[in-house]
Amino acid sequence: MKQFAVIGLGRFGNSLATTLYKMGNEVIAIDIDEEKVENIAEQVTYAVQADATDENILKSIGLKNIDVAVITMASNLEASILATLSAKELGIEKVYAKAMNDQHSKVLYKIGADKVFLPERDMGIRVAHTLATTNIFEMIELDPEHSIIEINAPEKWDNKTLDEMDFRAKYGVNVIAIKRGKKFNISPIAEDIIKKGDILVVLGENKAIEKLESDQK
Amino acid sequence: MKQFAVIGLGRFGNSLATTLYKMGNEVIAIDIDEEKVENIAEQVTYAVQADATDENILKSIGLKNIDVAVITMASNLEASILATLSAKELGIEKVYAKAMNDQHSKVLYKIGADKVFLPERDMGIRVAHTLATTNIFEMIELDPEHSIIEINAPEKWDNKTLDEMDFRAKYGVNVIAIKRGKKFNISPIAEDIIKKGDILVVLGENKAIEKLESDQK
Ligand SMILES: Nc1ncnc2c1ncn2[C@@H]1O[C@H](COP(=O)(O)OP(=O)(O)OP(=O)(O)O)[C@@H](O)[C@H]1O
Ligand SMILES: Nc1ncnc2c1ncn2[C@@H]1O[C@H](COP(=O)(O)OP(=O)(O)OP(=O)(O)O)[C@@H](O)[C@H]1O
Ligand SMILES: [Ca+2]
Ligand SMILES: [Ca+2]
Ligand SMILES: [Ca+2]
Ligand SMILES: [Ca+2]
Repeated sequence: MKQFAVIGLGRFGNSLATTLYKMGNEVIAIDIDEEKVENIAEQVTYAVQADATDENILKSIGLKNIDVAVITMASNLEASILATLSAKELGIEKVYAKAMNDQHSKVLYKIGADKVFLPERDMGIRVAHTLATTNIFEMIELDPEHSIIEINAPEKWDNKTLDEMDFRAKYGVNVIAIKRGKKFNISPIAEDIIKKGDILVVLGENKAIEKLESDQK
Repeated sequence: MKQFAVIGLGRFGNSLATTLYKMGNEVIAIDIDEEKVENIAEQVTYAVQADATDENILKSIGLKNIDVAVITMASNLEASILATLSAKELGIEKVYAKAMNDQHSKVLYKIGADKVFLPERDMGIRVAHTLATTNIFEMIELDPEHSIIEINAPEKWDNKTLDEMDFRAKYGVNVIAIKRGKKFNISPIAEDIIKKGDILVVLGENKAIEKLESDQK
């Protein structure tokens, strides 16, 4: 069990705080807006109305001994920066923050955020993949440039070996697993034969994956 | 290739529209705010400044023949409802919408939205799982028995090669990528040396991964 502070109870912050609490963690939820605080009170360990930009206020709430603080007020650039700085000053071990865009993210990293989240951007990318491809089941972003996707083998890949397909040379991606029905091959080798409808788990640069996706159609 | 309209160019809408376009789709991007329209103009097929709550305006933009419209202005309940209704009235085949909470989502489904997205809520849940479990940055479930995780290399793995660690024989997992700072090795070989703090992307059966996680602590 860890101790978390979630600062800012917008849509993301509210979901984060209540989920952490449901998972059995201690969660202090903070917002400057009294209504947000009242709404979440029953679903977290304790909820406090406070302005999180002020280090002394954070101190008086007892945030010093928290393991992780997540600063979520991304729409308010100034408040997000000040709260991140205050949390770092206080000596909180891990300070994470939500950003509204890449520039905001860079600033947060610069002032000491240990990790920055861009939930709307990330979900925009995920949903785009879901909508544009009939066959991508899931997608994981490893960093801004690399992803893992699941891709459905089309007719034209049927009965080809991985060696023949030569994904690495042709697309710059690696096939890291192949799923056929309930069978899962997690150590695919060059001689393995692809069947139409197989699900290939593929890792590579986003650009390479995009190329693979468009060629696969 | 499909034809998309993304209506509302906030953080989610902007990311969705530009990603769809990068993937090779035709994307019409619409916002009531001229600045948002200008900012995205080079990254979509075409960008239009318009009030999307008005069916006649949507018609005049030529949205009738669009395959999928995504209504993303979730903070503005009224605009989101009116735009969803207008898009349905126009006869657009698939109308998706972003909601700010469950109540909003219910209303959107009731008036005919084909799917509703709650990106902030979903990412709040994902991030909670990431934070509440030690060292796991991200996790993808390939099927009920297999997952891919990211794991932080502890002190005791420092300066060992993959060959020495022998993850496959000892744990039954494959290391499919290694991240060090900004560098990403997506084709790790036996001779590659692990450094403390490296992030290893590992694929395997859930049981094997759990064993690895507990041994890693
Ligand atoms: N100085 C502050 N101290 C504490 N809470 C604050 C402060 N400034 C803003 N907040 C709160 O942070 C929350 C989230 O802020 P905001 O709505 O600007 O972010 P957002 O990124 O748009 O949120 P969402 O997750 O809903 O997309 C709001 O509930 C707001 O009241
Ligand atoms: N009637 C309208 N017609 C067209 N665009 C609109 C209309 N009303 C709002 N918008 C635009 O929709 C976009 C997103 O709206 P808003 O910021 O309210 O949603 P949000 O859910 O908070 O967004 P985010 O994805 O940034 O979290 C804004 O750029 C806004 O200008
Ligand atoms: Ca503690
Ligand atoms: Ca069409
Ligand atoms: Ca907002
Ligand atoms: Ca938002």
